[in-house]
Amino acid sequence: MRTLINEVSKSIGKEVTLYGWIHRIRDLGKISFIILRDRSGLIQLVTEHTPEFPVESVVKAAGVARLNEKAPGGIEIELKDIKVLAEAHGDLPIAVNQDPAKLSLEAILDHRIISLRNPKILSIFRLQSGILKYFSEHMRNEGFTEIKTSKLIGTGTEGGTGLFPVQYFDRKMFLAQSPQFYKQAMVSSGLESVFEIGDAYRAEKHDTPRHLNEYVSLDVETAFIDSEQELMDLEQRILKSIFKGLAEDSAGIIETWGSDIPSAEDVDKIPRITHDEAKEIISKESGKKVFEINPEGERILCEWAGETHGIDAVFVYAFPRRKRPFYTYPVENHKTMSFDLLFRGLEITTGGRRINEYPMLLESIERFHLNPEGLADYLDIFKYGCPPHGGFAIGLERLTQKILGLANVKEASLFPRDRKRVRP
Amino acid sequence: MRTLINEVSKSIGKEVTLYGWIHRIRDLGKISFIILRDRSGLIQLVTEHTPEFPVESVVKAAGVARLNEKAPGGIEIELKDIKVLAEAHGDLPIAVNQDPAKLSLEAILDHRIISLRNPKILSIFRLQSGILKYFSEHMRNEGFTEIKTSKLIGTGTEGGTGLFPVQYFDRKMFLAQSPQFYKQAMVSSGLESVFEIGDAYRAEKHDTPRHLNEYVSLDVETAFIDSEQELMDLEQRILKSIFKGLAEDSAGIIETWGSDIPSAEDVDKIPRITHDEAKEIISKESGKKVFEINPEGERILCEWAGETHGIDAVFVYAFPRRKRPFYTYPVENHKTMSFDLLFRGLEITTGGRRINEYPMLLESIERFHLNPEGLADYLDIFKYGCPPHGGFAIGLERLTQKILGLANVKEASLFPRDRKRVRP
Repeated sequence: MRTLINEVSKSIGKEVTLYGWIHRIRDLGKISFIILRDRSGLIQLVTEHTPEFPVESVVKAAGVARLNEKAPGGIEIELKDIKVLAEAHGDLPIAVNQDPAKLSLEAILDHRIISLRNPKILSIFRLQSGILKYFSEHMRNEGFTEIKTSKLIGTGTEGGTGLFPVQYFDRKMFLAQSPQFYKQAMVSSGLESVFEIGDAYRAEKHDTPRHLNEYVSLDVETAFIDSEQELMDLEQRILKSIFKGLAEDSAGIIETWGSDIPSAEDVDKIPRITHDEAKEIISKESGKKVFEINPEGERILCEWAGETHGIDAVFVYAFPRRKRPFYTYPVENHKTMSFDLLFRGLEITTGGRRINEYPMLLESIERFHLNPEGLADYLDIFKYGCPPHGGFAIGLERLTQKILGLANVKEASLFPRDRKRVRP
Repeated sequence: MRTLINEVSKSIGKEVTLYGWIHRIRDLGKISFIILRDRSGLIQLVTEHTPEFPVESVVKAAGVARLNEKAPGGIEIELKDIKVLAEAHGDLPIAVNQDPAKLSLEAILDHRIISLRNPKILSIFRLQSGILKYFSEHMRNEGFTEIKTSKLIGTGTEGGTGLFPVQYFDRKMFLAQSPQFYKQAMVSSGLESVFEIGDAYRAEKHDTPRHLNEYVSLDVETAFIDSEQELMDLEQRILKSIFKGLAEDSAGIIETWGSDIPSAEDVDKIPRITHDEAKEIISKESGKKVFEINPEGERILCEWAGETHGIDAVFVYAFPRRKRPFYTYPVENHKTMSFDLLFRGLEITTGGRRINEYPMLLESIERFHLNPEGLADYLDIFKYGCPPHGGFAIGLERLTQKILGLANVKEASLFPRDRKRVRP
């Protein structure tokens, strides 16, 4: 029977069988200390034999659990027997058992298969798994239905730029930038409230700490809303569930990364300001005239929110119509019922109410100089009666990045893709 | 305050406000009956006014809830006020309020945006959402970590055939056929047990009731197993959780489709037979000599299992090495530690133990005449110590299809892609 490392404390004085990786070896001649790593943690093995296998070898180790104040974690295993299940071959290209801060981002990502063995690096993805869990649980608790839609599309609802072409048998298709079209279709189909966890692709040439060409989008769409204000309420409820869950089961990871997580009270304090107010605040704080909210502006707004509201996050709404897609619901003075959520200096969500009335949508398509024929399938959603609705998307990697305070969003993607990075 | 249709029974004698779609109108002159549809169900509205909006229009309706034995469901709403929120424009290309058995599969899929409004068709995807829920919950309960891996790959681990090429900036990439490489990497990284819900792409020219070119794969991989037998145990536990959850919350849907769901006791009875035994059974039942298990053979095996074991499902294991990928763990007599699960006549899972020892993998690559250089990143997983492990994948659409007894797997995909079908 296997004992997990984090359960050895229940078997003091007894023999246990552990499985795991050799994390570190300290050979003092007469005695050797071996640190064993499994999915639940690290533990020290003590033996009088000289270990004859390199670090990272996978072993089955049997021995007696003893309390020892000097051992890391206060427990060690007096080794009786150790069997190598898979021996490591050759020197590691990067060290796995050291502080990853010593490694460059390039080294971490070039040797991704190996760097993920570092417990601190791997912990990013344990936390990310928690985000997926608490997000889905929250959506289901609010009566949302999970959907899975095609990522292979004929043309983009938002035009053909920024799309990766796919050779699909004898024709060209594209990788979807978002499930926008499909989640609106599913609201209209009668599900009313839907969510999707899916890949999104952006053929943008940016190489910045905030961009990925392939990312996971947490998409939400819901019917019978009046304005974007209800969507911001919904996003606050979702974030509270995610943050609460992570505070409970990932506190150690957050601490290891030197970060902290907003409380429910903090999330309730997130201010809501209009796009015009946002520009004024940035102007005032930076002393410069502001024409649009760029990344520097996003950082300034979050700092302002931190100082004035006690949480470095802010909703910006009422974006001008020319800055939003054609399907965004317009309001007077060329504004829209749309919003962004900025969190710790970065936009992590874009959303809004969508146009649901067929005549208004036709008018908007004309106004944006788009071709209604290319949008025929999209228009069918609205032609036959579509409820007022709206939604938003949260970038999974960006949210992970900001929760842990990672410098680059690529650190929060298991196998990131950028213009040059196509492997592993 | 909105009342959902399935909650009206709590408000008999009171005024309620409902939101939904006009499902059907019966205008008798002096009196009209309107069937309203929302995400929770259908209800009858009664009015002395002639409705002046077409079916599928979206409305807000207020009225008093009354018990009426003659009304469908025993309750009706005495309409006080009705407001059109979004009027339907033009005649529907297909009827939404009729039995979908009257429509061809082509009509259903060509008009997918509209046909999904049919409650019976839409119910397929409510049940599918439940599969996603119970699958993830089960995996987390067994300590598995959810991962999200890239679908853009340089080359296939299983060679370049059957892959869709993507123009990725100035180079060619491919859409992944499975997360095989990545889930093995994540086992080896130290997570040990992982699952992924992700898209998989097969550039196969088949046009059959069992093939999709884009589908959702429920992938599982776990460390420290000895053989494929433990994987079959795991899959039985997963299926029991999914079937139990669906029996509780989707019984109505399963009944509507005239299907039934296996009990936990049934799942425990699934027989396990070797590939050789499977061929013998097919030979015996069909009276023909059998060289491989084709779709007809899969149907025969499930019928046999139904008759002899009381459940029309069967695990087939010990496939010959030449029928499995190079990474499948070999055993004596040119066999492998691999298996398929056939359910109601269809293969819904392929899996097995994988080779984890580096020298054995190098040998297998040579034996299969593959190029180790093209597999350098894959080999890194094993070079530095990888535990014994294995896994499998369940096709979401195939499982949905078989639970509901749908004739074609395309019915179980919201927006299916095949060689010709590229929209909506």
